Amino acid sequence: MSDFFKGIDKVRYEGPESTNPLAYRYYNPEEIVLGKRMDEHLRFALAYWHSFAWEGGDPFGGRTFERPWFDSEMEGAKLKAEVAFELFELLGVPYFCFHDADVRPEGETYAESTKKLNAIADIFEEKMAQTGTKLLWGTANLFSNRRFMGGAATNPDPDVFAYAAATIKANMDVTMRLKGENYVLWGGREGYETLLNTKLDKELDQLGRMLSLVVDYKHKMGFKGTILLEPKPQEPTKHQYDFDVSTVYGFLKKYGLENEVKVNIEVGHAILAGHTFEHEVAMAATHGILGSIDMNRNDYQSGWDTDQFPNNVPEVALAYYHILKAGGFATGGTNFDAKLRRQSIDPVDLLYGHIGGMDTCARGLKAAAAIIEDGSYDAFLEDRYAGWNDAEAQAMLKGERSLEDITARVERDNINPQPKSGRQEYLENLINRFV
Amino acid sequence: MSDFFKGIDKVRYEGPESTNPLAYRYYNPEEIVLGKRMDEHLRFALAYWHSFAWEGGDPFGGRTFERPWFDSEMEGAKLKAEVAFELFELLGVPYFCFHDADVRPEGETYAESTKKLNAIADIFEEKMAQTGTKLLWGTANLFSNRRFMGGAATNPDPDVFAYAAATIKANMDVTMRLKGENYVLWGGREGYETLLNTKLDKELDQLGRMLSLVVDYKHKMGFKGTILLEPKPQEPTKHQYDFDVSTVYGFLKKYGLENEVKVNIEVGHAILAGHTFEHEVAMAATHGILGSIDMNRNDYQSGWDTDQFPNNVPEVALAYYHILKAGGFATGGTNFDAKLRRQSIDPVDLLYGHIGGMDTCARGLKAAAAIIEDGSYDAFLEDRYAGWNDAEAQAMLKGERSLEDITARVERDNINPQPKSGRQEYLENLINRFV
Amino acid sequence: MSDFFKGIDKVRYEGPESTNPLAYRYYNPEEIVLGKRMDEHLRFALAYWHSFAWEGGDPFGGRTFERPWFDSEMEGAKLKAEVAFELFELLGVPYFCFHDADVRPEGETYAESTKKLNAIADIFEEKMAQTGTKLLWGTANLFSNRRFMGGAATNPDPDVFAYAAATIKANMDVTMRLKGENYVLWGGREGYETLLNTKLDKELDQLGRMLSLVVDYKHKMGFKGTILLEPKPQEPTKHQYDFDVSTVYGFLKKYGLENEVKVNIEVGHAILAGHTFEHEVAMAATHGILGSIDMNRNDYQSGWDTDQFPNNVPEVALAYYHILKAGGFATGGTNFDAKLRRQSIDPVDLLYGHIGGMDTCARGLKAAAAIIEDGSYDAFLEDRYAGWNDAEAQAMLKGERSLEDITARVERDNINPQPKSGRQEYLENLINRFV
Amino acid sequence: MSDFFKGIDKVRYEGPESTNPLAYRYYNPEEIVLGKRMDEHLRFALAYWHSFAWEGGDPFGGRTFERPWFDSEMEGAKLKAEVAFELFELLGVPYFCFHDADVRPEGETYAESTKKLNAIADIFEEKMAQTGTKLLWGTANLFSNRRFMGGAATNPDPDVFAYAAATIKANMDVTMRLKGENYVLWGGREGYETLLNTKLDKELDQLGRMLSLVVDYKHKMGFKGTILLEPKPQEPTKHQYDFDVSTVYGFLKKYGLENEVKVNIEVGHAILAGHTFEHEVAMAATHGILGSIDMNRNDYQSGWDTDQFPNNVPEVALAYYHILKAGGFATGGTNFDAKLRRQSIDPVDLLYGHIGGMDTCARGLKAAAAIIEDGSYDAFLEDRYAGWNDAEAQAMLKGERSLEDITARVERDNINPQPKSGRQEYLENLINRFV
Ligand SMILES: [Co+2]
Ligand SMILES: [Co+2]
Ligand SMILES: [Co+2]
Ligand SMILES: [Co+2]
Ligand SMILES: [Co+2]
Ligand SMILES: [Co+2]
Ligand SMILES: [Co+2]
Ligand SMILES: [Co+2]
Repeated sequence: MSDFFKGIDKVRYEGPESTNPLAYRYYNPEEIVLGKRMDEHLRFALAYWHSFAWEGGDPFGGRTFERPWFDSEMEGAKLKAEVAFELFELLGVPYFCFHDADVRPEGETYAESTKKLNAIADIFEEKMAQTGTKLLWGTANLFSNRRFMGGAATNPDPDVFAYAAATIKANMDVTMRLKGENYVLWGGREGYETLLNTKLDKELDQLGRMLSLVVDYKHKMGFKGTILLEPKPQEPTKHQYDFDVSTVYGFLKKYGLENEVKVNIEVGHAILAGHTFEHEVAMAATHGILGSIDMNRNDYQSGWDTDQFPNNVPEVALAYYHILKAGGFATGGTNFDAKLRRQSIDPVDLLYGHIGGMDTCARGLKAAAAIIEDGSYDAFLEDRYAGWNDAEAQAMLKGERSLEDITARVERDNINPQPKSGRQEYLENLINRFV
Repeated sequence: MSDFFKGIDKVRYEGPESTNPLAYRYYNPEEIVLGKRMDEHLRFALAYWHSFAWEGGDPFGGRTFERPWFDSEMEGAKLKAEVAFELFELLGVPYFCFHDADVRPEGETYAESTKKLNAIADIFEEKMAQTGTKLLWGTANLFSNRRFMGGAATNPDPDVFAYAAATIKANMDVTMRLKGENYVLWGGREGYETLLNTKLDKELDQLGRMLSLVVDYKHKMGFKGTILLEPKPQEPTKHQYDFDVSTVYGFLKKYGLENEVKVNIEVGHAILAGHTFEHEVAMAATHGILGSIDMNRNDYQSGWDTDQFPNNVPEVALAYYHILKAGGFATGGTNFDAKLRRQSIDPVDLLYGHIGGMDTCARGLKAAAAIIEDGSYDAFLEDRYAGWNDAEAQAMLKGERSLEDITARVERDNINPQPKSGRQEYLENLINRFV
Repeated sequence: MSDFFKGIDKVRYEGPESTNPLAYRYYNPEEIVLGKRMDEHLRFALAYWHSFAWEGGDPFGGRTFERPWFDSEMEGAKLKAEVAFELFELLGVPYFCFHDADVRPEGETYAESTKKLNAIADIFEEKMAQTGTKLLWGTANLFSNRRFMGGAATNPDPDVFAYAAATIKANMDVTMRLKGENYVLWGGREGYETLLNTKLDKELDQLGRMLSLVVDYKHKMGFKGTILLEPKPQEPTKHQYDFDVSTVYGFLKKYGLENEVKVNIEVGHAILAGHTFEHEVAMAATHGILGSIDMNRNDYQSGWDTDQFPNNVPEVALAYYHILKAGGFATGGTNFDAKLRRQSIDPVDLLYGHIGGMDTCARGLKAAAAIIEDGSYDAFLEDRYAGWNDAEAQAMLKGERSLEDITARVERDNINPQPKSGRQEYLENLINRFV
Repeated sequence: MSDFFKGIDKVRYEGPESTNPLAYRYYNPEEIVLGKRMDEHLRFALAYWHSFAWEGGDPFGGRTFERPWFDSEMEGAKLKAEVAFELFELLGVPYFCFHDADVRPEGETYAESTKKLNAIADIFEEKMAQTGTKLLWGTANLFSNRRFMGGAATNPDPDVFAYAAATIKANMDVTMRLKGENYVLWGGREGYETLLNTKLDKELDQLGRMLSLVVDYKHKMGFKGTILLEPKPQEPTKHQYDFDVSTVYGFLKKYGLENEVKVNIEVGHAILAGHTFEHEVAMAATHGILGSIDMNRNDYQSGWDTDQFPNNVPEVALAYYHILKAGGFATGGTNFDAKLRRQSIDPVDLLYGHIGGMDTCARGLKAAAAIIEDGSYDAFLEDRYAGWNDAEAQAMLKGERSLEDITARVERDNINPQPKSGRQEYLENLINRFV
């Protein structure tokens, strides 16, 4: 037991009236919501990188956090793991997620890096057994090292593609060993800084090939988890190929992977792409590729990825509504891809951030469940489209009528449709009854 | 001959040194560029709506233009047509484009509207024969009338779908009669104002069906033109389903239409979607769906569609570079989907706007051709990806190596790729030699 | 009594548990909050233009609303007034606001327009006496008529300045007659569409002069209300001179008007300027120019002014917190500068919009009051800056120490300040206890 | 002589036809433009930080550049200075600019940091004498060290204010010793990350005091240079107090400093604030506070500060037009606050970046001069406002007419102004003749 969180006790549910800043007011894991435990709905995970590896830097200033594991190699990595599992236990989160680069120091060679990764995986295996914490997903960081500055799979240099492929294999192996429930790919540098030096067609083909390699390896190894792509429109690059959910869907269709790969949707990335988070969730559900979520928020006045902890219940509620309507998470979950503000330098701030985020999600989930249980919202929606249940409408929709058939009917019946109120304000008020 | 443009002569090419504001300084139709006449490269078209139907209103003020054809019905429509063809001739543009709603008054019924449309088409047919002006494309306006306020193909009311289908048929018929080279669909209301009242899956299926109806009808009628979708991310709706080129590509793949339909890319819509115009052009070429362009510009400080005439040569040059590299336009062309500022109220302003736009495009085209003829830029690009021509790289790319094969090679050869300069500044300077 | 709202009863407070969509769940006018009635805190006003004059058009489509008063002149204006006061009574809002252009038809001449305005004012006077509804503010619409297309006070044509000045006088006269509590100026066209045709210095001087004329006239007439400028960064123009609160403050200082004029801050305009609404409120309070608010919301994914009814309680709560801390409204109030979505075409939608907006504000106000009553948030803030209460700190702040004095102390005492946590997540959680 | 730029010769002017990527095509220092040498117009300066201290990191990846001076302390700082002056000479730029933090390593204490700064200043002094390179401005970096994470002058801790004040003094002293022509303050952390933990009024007063201290010290020391504030709306903080030129003007007025302090306007910061660069330049000229410029560009599709080298001549031309119209630079100049893309890792890329930037500025300056020499644009502008030269218009503008006087005249003369075309497209075409 490290003394990093000295004096901080396990966080417990105390109910909405609690004024204890280190208690949950809404997250009550065993509470039953729509027939299932709250923790099984939400499937919270902590992200290793933001909470334990990020140093508090920004483009205009360096490290603000002082963590005893910084600036030391494998010893630091072990202490970091110890503290990480202490936080998982203090918060009672069932899952965690990792990138190789935030759990182990980089080696001089691929082989050495892989060896270090495996050594940390040994520690994780032990800690997971001790604490019961599970792995939601693993991933390879293919963007921080300078070798990836011009892309990983989409690099003009095929050796970088090869190095990236090998790195993915190492991380898939660890993820499988640790019984991870998903494997994630985020293409932070799979895009371009300037179109001037870029061949789009070549790079997309490279990216498609890499994803096919991953899917093939998954099947060969009998991995039952889900392969997830995480869309983001830009940052670090000017343009990223996995721009948003719809773009990723087109990419998967192009390379025949739409039944093999799903998406991990991050709130902040949705905002940067010009969408609401609930839009991206609903669009993924529509395309059958909703996998998991990276929960955070983006500052609406900032043009970069702020990865803040969520705090707006009405927004979070709408997202969980769509997740619930899509059947809830299968292998996915709610990963906090959120970091403390760089001025929140104390260990206790790590608690405040996650407690607030988890309570916001729990409130949102309960609100979404209440909307569904009440039923009036869903009934409104059914009713709005009810006309399409008619036989002639169905015939049109199924392709049993040609443009000429339909035109003939319009002329014959002098069809002259009258608009009906969209009732947006009514619906906003209705939703506000539950949030 | 109306007296609308009284005193204005046919615009002629006078060369870069001319100070005549009513002359072309760069657009010289018969000048040969890369072995082809400039007018055959550019294939300029004028848009009927912005130049003749738009009244100068904005959300905070009404009509500023005074046109003798406003406020009268068929007589106005006829005068409008007369003036339009006068402008086509004054400018010497080979093509025009139209929406039904900007060429004919709306009737009380579908049948009446169609009759009026056909009457105007008679006039067009005659004028086209007289003047030699051709039709680049026609389209149906499925967004201005209040019946379409909740969508056309994606309306919750199937009668609106039917009415829209019939309207499309009427416009396709006129387009075919006038030997239009393309038919365009822009889904201005095919999206949502609030996700709260929207079923995404249903609406996308409706939209896919409508597009299939159009494609089927095209084939049945033997129309040889191209069906084009015009992407736009938002405005008038909060979210439009044809968000950008990549989204449209995924949509076409979903409904099996990627070999039947191409895109008409508008500069301003690219900007609103968070892309450069050249990105959208290059992405469409990569996906094999580059059809035509709507040339204009968007103010970078405004969050709505400003549809201004282009004036920045370096930007336009990059777009034509990608068009030329993709083989140039087939049935497509350069349509000025651009409108005068609402304070530019004089007839002569219509000349200034188009002259400036056409000269900007001509300069851009010539710059793009010079880049290609010089060859050093293309050579740089080939060289940057040359490593992928190696046998082992090709084997990886073609799927002849598994993740394990590649990993074994990385370990065996201790592959440790070193980054190479991306040379962005060098390339920007190189391009600046030509613009 | 018109039959426009036939079948709709006066909206009453029924408490949070009510499921009646035509009842208030939070707005309870006589409820005491921080020692004052809720209606006296909020001082709700309805905006005439959005609710009664706007036709549902947008840049891509015309009128969607069907109101019996459209398309008729003075008769329509009278019916409109009748229905407006019916809505004021149904909702129980104490105030309204108007622009001349939305209450009377435009005349052929200035004199005629003024006559019509005065005729409508007669009706208002009578209705106000009957119903007890009061006027929060009046204003002149100096942006819709084409004469103002190039600016009103900032027009290159001094005759437009003169016409605008006269129009302001007419509206101030009516506002004074109706005992308006404020007079507002929003400079919708006081800016530029292109800097190319603009002399900034001249136009700012013209604008400063106009505002001085207004202030002089106010004093001459003994008007006790407040003169308010409403900042907005753009739209309709590319750039507006009253960009945001800080810009307006600089403008007022430039022309010596900072003690004469305050601001009317609109939520949507704050968002368009890249700020939160609470930022603008707090900045105005800091500069001593907080006057009144235009309550609405802007869609975070849209780049134009959406003027939607507010529905996000946490956001509204923060704004009212700053208003309460600044002492609450003096002559100002909460004007709903909000319009129905153009698909919300039924009379009852006008009720839904305002009920939702009023309930959102009432919840926000109560949350803000609870934060203040609880006291822990304010205590945190005091404590954070407590170091500045020390004598030496005060001496620095008051200018009693020079740069050299301070440097000498830093060197002598080897001052080496250690950063303290900013506690952002803690504070967000704390605030979330109340919203 | 280091071997960092081995094999690279002094960059010379070779004219527009040159294809040598290491030659100037437009920057010809001694060429006379509007009666003055080009180098005296442009007054180019290189920024030490981006070119020599920045390591190529971004929020998702670390150092990409390999510079022999990284990771060593004073020895590195000396080598860095040597290479810096080599680049100044290779490029032939007359000026440079520095922050303390990019020229010297940080010490353990204020005294030690100052000592190191002074030691580097000794080297600079010697190099400047040898090479003739001059100092455009110096500044203190009050944002990178973690002590400033919560602000420098605006920190809740008065000790941080004191430390910042002392640091400014040290940098002013060095700037004066090196005969710097200006002293700059950029408030990177003078703002807030969350309004929740912020007292705006207190922080603004602190900032005003700090600026007064600087002005007082300047006068005491007899420094003849200009004190410059550099506006930026956000990044690193969510909101910065020096948001844009207009905000800074209001701030200066508030604290009575508008005659003491001018602005250093950065292109990228203008874009982030929602303005064009020429807007900010023209606004500063209007307010009499135009000082100097930080030349770069921001990617229009990125929401953060990209600090790229400029490459769009038409945009740069408009900025220099306004600078020339304001009389050109006095103590200010054109500082390249621009950095290589992180993939541009070779020493020669430093040459490409600056050559391209300098040529873009030179082309822009020549275009601006040609617009002025041609005269038709300025004549248009004069003519547009000519009505204001009339006696009655002047009387209104000067305050010799009251609102009642003006209204009486409008009524008496039945003034009914007719709109005139704003001629935006004509003007855009006119400008395009010169760029
Ligand atoms: Co993520
Ligand atoms: Co993120
Ligand atoms: Co278009
Ligand atoms: Co457009
Ligand atoms: Co308003
Ligand atoms: Co508004
Ligand atoms: Co700068
Ligand atoms: Co910058």
